[in-house]
Amino acid sequence: MMHSTPRSEANRAAFERMVATDPVLVDIQPAGDVIPGMTATTILTSGPPLEWPDYVGPQRSALIYGAIHEGLASGEEDAVGKFESGKIQIEPCHHHGAVGSVAGIYTASMPVFVVENRSAGNRGFCNLYEGESRRRLNYGVYGPDVKERLDLVNGVVADVIRRAVVAAGGVELKPMMGRALRMGDELHSRNTAATALFTRELAPEFVRLGASSSDDVQTTLSFLAESDYFFLRLSMAASKVAVDASSGVDRSSVVSAMSLSCKGFGIRISGLGDEWFTGPHCTVEGHFFEGYSKDDLVWMGGESLVTETAGLGGFAQACAFPLQQYQGGTPEAMIANNLAMYEITVGEHPDYVIPYFGFRGTPTAIDLFKVVETGITPVIDGGLGGRDGGQIGAGVIRAPIECFEKAAEAYEQRYGG
Amino acid sequence: MMHSTPRSEANRAAFERMVATDPVLVDIQPAGDVIPGMTATTILTSGPPLEWPDYVGPQRSALIYGAIHEGLASGEEDAVGKFESGKIQIEPCHHHGAVGSVAGIYTASMPVFVVENRSAGNRGFCNLYEGESRRRLNYGVYGPDVKERLDLVNGVVADVIRRAVVAAGGVELKPMMGRALRMGDELHSRNTAATALFTRELAPEFVRLGASSSDDVQTTLSFLAESDYFFLRLSMAASKVAVDASSGVDRSSVVSAMSLSCKGFGIRISGLGDEWFTGPHCTVEGHFFEGYSKDDLVWMGGESLVTETAGLGGFAQACAFPLQQYQGGTPEAMIANNLAMYEITVGEHPDYVIPYFGFRGTPTAIDLFKVVETGITPVIDGGLGGRDGGQIGAGVIRAPIECFEKAAEAYEQRYGG
Repeated sequence: MMHSTPRSEANRAAFERMVATDPVLVDIQPAGDVIPGMTATTILTSGPPLEWPDYVGPQRSALIYGAIHEGLASGEEDAVGKFESGKIQIEPCHHHGAVGSVAGIYTASMPVFVVENRSAGNRGFCNLYEGESRRRLNYGVYGPDVKERLDLVNGVVADVIRRAVVAAGGVELKPMMGRALRMGDELHSRNTAATALFTRELAPEFVRLGASSSDDVQTTLSFLAESDYFFLRLSMAASKVAVDASSGVDRSSVVSAMSLSCKGFGIRISGLGDEWFTGPHCTVEGHFFEGYSKDDLVWMGGESLVTETAGLGGFAQACAFPLQQYQGGTPEAMIANNLAMYEITVGEHPDYVIPYFGFRGTPTAIDLFKVVETGITPVIDGGLGGRDGGQIGAGVIRAPIECFEKAAEAYEQRYGG
Repeated sequence: MMHSTPRSEANRAAFERMVATDPVLVDIQPAGDVIPGMTATTILTSGPPLEWPDYVGPQRSALIYGAIHEGLASGEEDAVGKFESGKIQIEPCHHHGAVGSVAGIYTASMPVFVVENRSAGNRGFCNLYEGESRRRLNYGVYGPDVKERLDLVNGVVADVIRRAVVAAGGVELKPMMGRALRMGDELHSRNTAATALFTRELAPEFVRLGASSSDDVQTTLSFLAESDYFFLRLSMAASKVAVDASSGVDRSSVVSAMSLSCKGFGIRISGLGDEWFTGPHCTVEGHFFEGYSKDDLVWMGGESLVTETAGLGGFAQACAFPLQQYQGGTPEAMIANNLAMYEITVGEHPDYVIPYFGFRGTPTAIDLFKVVETGITPVIDGGLGGRDGGQIGAGVIRAPIECFEKAAEAYEQRYGG
């Protein structure tokens, strides 16, 4: 029999706030117009805050390319100078209601999904998926092909979807996400069903818009049909409003953010304010694209693991057996991974359920003390980046224990043992 | 080590023909215009052939309502007289390249999917899903509501989809079905993903058609969004061309048809021509809608089990754990059911695979001798009808062993032991 303690009560409250989230896609607008604190010269990137010189490898490249793409710098040298002088300011996505995929570059002109949590009123943001190419700005790559795709996605595609979403009066994401979990998605590394459901939901609006903008609508439909990952950014924004809703609960040891930079892993805790507790890089069991191996792997940031923080992704792996093909592993390992997450979480999600477990709710709201006590760290599904930029594979990532140990210490200092 | 015998070679040939099937939806046309041997006064129904007086209960009602709906009879008495006199002719669906869902009523004016097997040239047909209501003609129910829905489906919906399909140059069903199996469908009692994929595939055509027929396209999109079962009829037609392609192989003991009537179960065998081998009704483990129980169950025909005959449905249950909710059972039972089907089939489907089994192909092409030797009968997912007509639940149905024993005897008489 578990006795109720102030901490367990606080964790239950954080859990309740997280699962009560009712995320609705209400608009798509330029980041600079809607993201709080974002200026024309701000660039957001993944990870806990770092000083400019600490950004290395493809994450550094991604920041430079972001500055060039936005027209804030004429070239690499100019960009570096402006980062050094502070004329261009780098900020962590998480501090601005946003989350970044891999390097997670946001510039002011980039359109972002605006997701509103109708149960608590907070908002979350995520920019759009760049398309199926391995060469993407968010993997630290830039060139005419990358720019062309960014312009297409952030131009016609974002505009058509925005008009459809607004005409539809918004799109409720939670029912769609619950449904996708019954259709082989775990909503981090597999979003095939959710993307198809999203397309179907907006189809009546696309037909209406087609009367006046037929070519643009056809372009958008083609992009959606080719982009099984499209919905990930909506899953991320929906998860961001959930974890933000769960943060700030006094005495709660629930993890309210997990984030990667090129330097390592970091977490925030609901009852410990905005402080980041950092540790080394993750470990990984990956499946690499042909021609690549573990030796090519490099960390360049990542916050799509906000989905795991909210009870999805690796915490719903047993929804998504087809993922084996993309990220390796076996059904048995996926089941074991998923079951282990019940050991480190506060509760089971009432709306996100796992058919293979007889509709048991996904394990939701990581309790840092359960991580420290069991030594079981969160399981994360994720894309893997290569040393020269670009995606080189996908895999199951394990968060490092050190962040949790540091956070436990800070918790005990603040609240006592 | 298995030695090759004339029978095993013949079964391998039947299996190869079945899995090589390349089903493409090419058109939607009135049954009377495209189904071979169908006249203005023919009504097709599920099951091996029966004499008119043998049709009882809701299947009898369905035939009468079909005659009235088609305008072939002014009322019940008139219909009965015309069935007795042969002025209206009843024929089994399976004899005409078609398959019936539950009672399976086809009249000449009803539009049907025309599915062409591009690898062998044969064609299969299936009429359209009536919608989510429990009251449907194919469950032996008729009334103003049923007529109104039939008119909608067979009118606007069939017309818009036909125009879209023709404009698209046909829809390849096999890739869509292979994909749906990775998205929680087994393509008999769960078609949620396939229906969404079908809608998305035709979305560009719907946008084009919307310019001139906006209301009709919107009506069709609404119907598709509400009808998770819509794709079943395409899965049935695709399966029908597969089993027909596998039939007529000399010495093959592969089951080329399974069918239910109000009187019992029947099968046909690839190497034994058009003869039906019949037995009693199936056994069932069902999940009944509120207010109904096993006592209300009545058999009124059914040929959606053509999907199982072709390696789908119950033979792919482990693709579709969410089915528990609809038809009862547990994940463990679904896995055991599915694994057992490997004991009675010739091979594993190269294009239809089960993620939970590490992408093992679905067990395909039932060998009647394996059924007789093991005593394991085919597992079938299916809707269940009530004594007063209408759907009252869904469940896992087991074919009776008697048909297989009779067929084995006939095989031995024809080909020797």
